[in-house]
Amino acid sequence: MNEKLNNLVLHSIRQYRKPNTLDLTVGEGHFQAPFNAKLGVYEALLMNQTKYSTISGEESLRKKFASKYYSQYDYEEVVVTNGATQGIFITLMAIINNNSDEIIVLAPYYPAYAQIITLLGAKPVIVDTKDHDFKISITKLKEYLTHNTVGIIINEPCNPTGVTYTLEEKLELLKLFREHKMYVIVDEVYRAYTNEDHVSFAELIDLKLKEQFIFVNSLSKSHLITGFRVGFVLSNKQIISNLQKLNWMIIGSLSKLLQEGASNALDDDYYPNFVKRYYINNTRYLQDELDELNIDYVKGNGGYYVFVRTDQMGLDDEGFTNLFSEKYQLAVVPGRIFGENYQNYVRVSCCRDVKDIIRFVEVLRELK
Amino acid sequence: MNEKLNNLVLHSIRQYRKPNTLDLTVGEGHFQAPFNAKLGVYEALLMNQTKYSTISGEESLRKKFASKYYSQYDYEEVVVTNGATQGIFITLMAIINNNSDEIIVLAPYYPAYAQIITLLGAKPVIVDTKDHDFKISITKLKEYLTHNTVGIIINEPCNPTGVTYTLEEKLELLKLFREHKMYVIVDEVYRAYTNEDHVSFAELIDLKLKEQFIFVNSLSKSHLITGFRVGFVLSNKQIISNLQKLNWMIIGSLSKLLQEGASNALDDDYYPNFVKRYYINNTRYLQDELDELNIDYVKGNGGYYVFVRTDQMGLDDEGFTNLFSEKYQLAVVPGRIFGENYQNYVRVSCCRDVKDIIRFVEVLRELK
Repeated sequence: MNEKLNNLVLHSIRQYRKPNTLDLTVGEGHFQAPFNAKLGVYEALLMNQTKYSTISGEESLRKKFASKYYSQYDYEEVVVTNGATQGIFITLMAIINNNSDEIIVLAPYYPAYAQIITLLGAKPVIVDTKDHDFKISITKLKEYLTHNTVGIIINEPCNPTGVTYTLEEKLELLKLFREHKMYVIVDEVYRAYTNEDHVSFAELIDLKLKEQFIFVNSLSKSHLITGFRVGFVLSNKQIISNLQKLNWMIIGSLSKLLQEGASNALDDDYYPNFVKRYYINNTRYLQDELDELNIDYVKGNGGYYVFVRTDQMGLDDEGFTNLFSEKYQLAVVPGRIFGENYQNYVRVSCCRDVKDIIRFVEVLRELK
Repeated sequence: MNEKLNNLVLHSIRQYRKPNTLDLTVGEGHFQAPFNAKLGVYEALLMNQTKYSTISGEESLRKKFASKYYSQYDYEEVVVTNGATQGIFITLMAIINNNSDEIIVLAPYYPAYAQIITLLGAKPVIVDTKDHDFKISITKLKEYLTHNTVGIIINEPCNPTGVTYTLEEKLELLKLFREHKMYVIVDEVYRAYTNEDHVSFAELIDLKLKEQFIFVNSLSKSHLITGFRVGFVLSNKQIISNLQKLNWMIIGSLSKLLQEGASNALDDDYYPNFVKRYYINNTRYLQDELDELNIDYVKGNGGYYVFVRTDQMGLDDEGFTNLFSEKYQLAVVPGRIFGENYQNYVRVSCCRDVKDIIRFVEVLRELK
């Protein structure tokens, strides 16, 4: 039996959901899936699209996704995965080669990153970003680079902080990645929830850097189809060829029905844009109210989470979480699952009805 | 970059499909998915079942599947996977612990087994069965057991031979597994295509042996929903707990829509039974004709493949495959991908329209 698995404790975020509470835990939008997505599945059912898809996913879906969001990539540089989760897993499996390999993970971080790296026999090197506005600084990053460094994961916008990098900061990072060859995994599942002026790393890399970059994304958050499990990995052809092999061995292929639904969802921007505005408004509203109440939080400008400090209220993350769920029927996620330095933070998810965010603010006001 | 992946050559069976040929390659039934399966997805769409499922899969589906096919197992001893492929992958990942671990694979074998084992850093120990009616003999198996043996994969009915074990043979094997502790992975994806008197290992194991056994199955073949990607792994709670962790890290969860479709498909036996009779008839028909023509083949009595010898016709597997596809527009799979001793065999898939099997026989007759 795999000892690494025996020792692994699931940091599933869903465990913090409680019955009969307002749920501000999960990263799953409360609006329904777009009608277009459902219609796409229905049409595919009528057309009996119930046989195997290809190992890389449907060509039409890969073409549409790449041309819409990653025009730097050809459809042959895309594989479709069972959500971004599988995208992260196979990407790490493709780049990790032996037990001395190190992958840099920027804290606070989505807990599965470090766990997958450990499971695959490599070493997650956790680099904290708290004392630099929750962004990695070039100087600090350099301190952690060794000859064993094979890659870094950048989650932008970051879960749980919402932090993104400016164009200038990105160019600085690219300079570093040019000097220090390593794989750069950019997890952009929250990219839809950014301001108009946001620029992805994908728009800045040249052919040389393309050899190092791997983008992971999905339609789960942007198109409210978490349950469709349609994710994407984009990279150069050599890496993609290995990801195809992994897809073949790990999942065989993905459902054509759901790929057709996802593809159809991509044809409509009105509804995803409405949802984007709604959740960004929720997030800004919460940030404004926290400012008003003088409660500290990480000033992210992307995604739909707010990472809120709890110690000013005399509570650690678990104290806060317990108080809020038991006394006020409001569920949030304790910060410690995002890194050991975050026992005085909670993550509040704003992809909910605005009434739920208002209720959360009311309780904060009551407690202050 | 993962060197093991760079060196891996995909033995995808789909690559032997050719345009404009009668396709006797893939293990994908030519009949459409049952109406019930499609109706289940449609109803789930109407009910907006488009959010995350649970890590282990829907409780209702696990209950229905276990009580119908594996009454020895409780639903808490079942995880739902993206097809049997993912079931095999996570099972191997759960039991392999270090680089000296050996997993016994009985040749001829489904090529992904050995490749996944190698990818996961363990050693596939290929044990040939050709000289013992394509079944493993206890004596021979014992020769291959070392203190590094952690498991064995038994594919029953076997792909590509259709071979199954008698009750007596199974009891002998169980005696061995009682003495020599190892994990026994039983891949039963073709179990639906067996005779009435077939007994699964699942029906024979006691609580003690249950600690060692892991069953992998799916509805792809039995219910013609290859494209739904609904597989199952059944085992004791300790192993299942680790498989749940792997599901969380590798896929997050599976689509609820497709699980509802699969669950609905389980309510109807008439159509799957019709399909079963049809494909078994095709298989028996081909075997009878081969007998008539004095062409050697493996006398399997399950599944829907026939593993046919080619050297009596003066051809090796590739010669046969090329001749049949180029001259007769008939595609079959060369034997060598199932093991190095099988360069004089081809696998013929009988889950097709009977007319295609008749055409294949006509060509054989012409060539003799």
